[in-house]
Amino acid sequence: MEIIKAQKCFGGTLNYVEHESKTLKCKMRLSVYIPPKGNSCPMVTWLSGLTCTEENFTSKAGAYRKASELGLVIVAPDTSPRGEGVPDDDSYDLGQGAGFYVNATEEPWSKHFQMYSYITEELQELMASTFQPDMNRQAIMGHSMGGHGAIMIGLKNPSLFKSISAFSPIVSPMTVPWGQKAFQAYLGSDQNSWKDYDSCELILSLGGEKTVPLLVDQGCADDFLEKELQPHKLQEACKNKKVSLQLRMQEGYDHSYYFISTFIDDHLEFHAQHLK
Amino acid sequence: MEIIKAQKCFGGTLNYVEHESKTLKCKMRLSVYIPPKGNSCPMVTWLSGLTCTEENFTSKAGAYRKASELGLVIVAPDTSPRGEGVPDDDSYDLGQGAGFYVNATEEPWSKHFQMYSYITEELQELMASTFQPDMNRQAIMGHSMGGHGAIMIGLKNPSLFKSISAFSPIVSPMTVPWGQKAFQAYLGSDQNSWKDYDSCELILSLGGEKTVPLLVDQGCADDFLEKELQPHKLQEACKNKKVSLQLRMQEGYDHSYYFISTFIDDHLEFHAQHLK
Repeated sequence: MEIIKAQKCFGGTLNYVEHESKTLKCKMRLSVYIPPKGNSCPMVTWLSGLTCTEENFTSKAGAYRKASELGLVIVAPDTSPRGEGVPDDDSYDLGQGAGFYVNATEEPWSKHFQMYSYITEELQELMASTFQPDMNRQAIMGHSMGGHGAIMIGLKNPSLFKSISAFSPIVSPMTVPWGQKAFQAYLGSDQNSWKDYDSCELILSLGGEKTVPLLVDQGCADDFLEKELQPHKLQEACKNKKVSLQLRMQEGYDHSYYFISTFIDDHLEFHAQHLK
Repeated sequence: MEIIKAQKCFGGTLNYVEHESKTLKCKMRLSVYIPPKGNSCPMVTWLSGLTCTEENFTSKAGAYRKASELGLVIVAPDTSPRGEGVPDDDSYDLGQGAGFYVNATEEPWSKHFQMYSYITEELQELMASTFQPDMNRQAIMGHSMGGHGAIMIGLKNPSLFKSISAFSPIVSPMTVPWGQKAFQAYLGSDQNSWKDYDSCELILSLGGEKTVPLLVDQGCADDFLEKELQPHKLQEACKNKKVSLQLRMQEGYDHSYYFISTFIDDHLEFHAQHLK
């Protein structure tokens, strides 16, 4: 692992990191914020949306003022494997920049597109062996495709993540165009294999297991609300299975980082409270 | 004037605006943040640094949380005229993206590069006739080349701007490489014409006139500190002429927007206090 750049920010340090990923078989970049209280703080993983790299959240979300105050390490990985040898697609919603946080089983994607294992295993090992935050106190959050990733990964790993939050998440990828396109390509046509990565399906399959607290913010002026996001599906699944969900519909807000920056403090406070 | 995009942000509205500039003879873009209290609030003008457009500050500074709370309109213009018919240079520190907030007198720059008049006249008229903030309560701030612009323009227009602040400003463009290159190109070889745009020279030429409060933050780990910025020159000029300056040397901070975001709240509070 190499620290490409380390910049002081709100008394702490923002690190841009590069490492050779054995899971994704390519070089990967991420940002790691260490608050002034030091590296042994709890860790929050941020997962970004379609087309994003590690840079979008890092430079635009305005998260580090509150992370500095609360004492939270924030790690923001890239959204897919990258580079010349990695398969890609001309469209923005498939291939590089669009990993969807699943482990691909289909050609040509399966060799590199193993984002689920990257986030839940390799990134965990990397952080534990380098920056060494308190790995027993972790939360996960994300935006849009990364909101899908955060909820799905959080639900499947309740021993790792004590709380989950999302901005404008794709809650039911199996039933909307973005998710259907990606899952068809990465997982093939057997929709049974899709269910394992669909937040609503994961909730509906619960058999009384305890789940961690879940906070979702959704802008009412989001252009993708009806076609791709459909938060009511998450609400119905949670109600059906008595899962704790705080869904906040935010009047007038869109899908952008201006929306995220407005409510990021609330999300960090929510996680800090559950990581105490 | 056309509002290209309007996005809700911290309860207010962030507008991206395009207009045909008669001063610069090209289309210009800017961002205008209107806080929840409405458009009749005091206005702060932000001037960006080399290579920036209206987008850098707007998406990266994290200024709108505090601007929303304090009730400040923030306008962030582009840093130079732009477009196909506008002269340019291959280097990043001359031509498009590097207007230096002067009125060029030399060919080929003089037709379009009239940033001083654009900021002090046309932008004033545009804001007064469209968004209509409280034009009697204004402050100005900026970063690097824009810090030079803010201090220089603020000093020359004490009736317009009640307070001035800057991050890592070029305080003495006449004596450092960035400024010398730009002033030579835009203003020609007669250095007497340069003095009118040099903050230190403007302060040293004061004859007892009252000046407005001035706040400067400078990162101690800024790569440009010694070669291009040299804040001690501003400090000496201010001491010499008994001008009120608060210069804060910030240990460990660099030249980036992570530095700006860390201290932007202090600057907005400083201005709000003087705009009461």
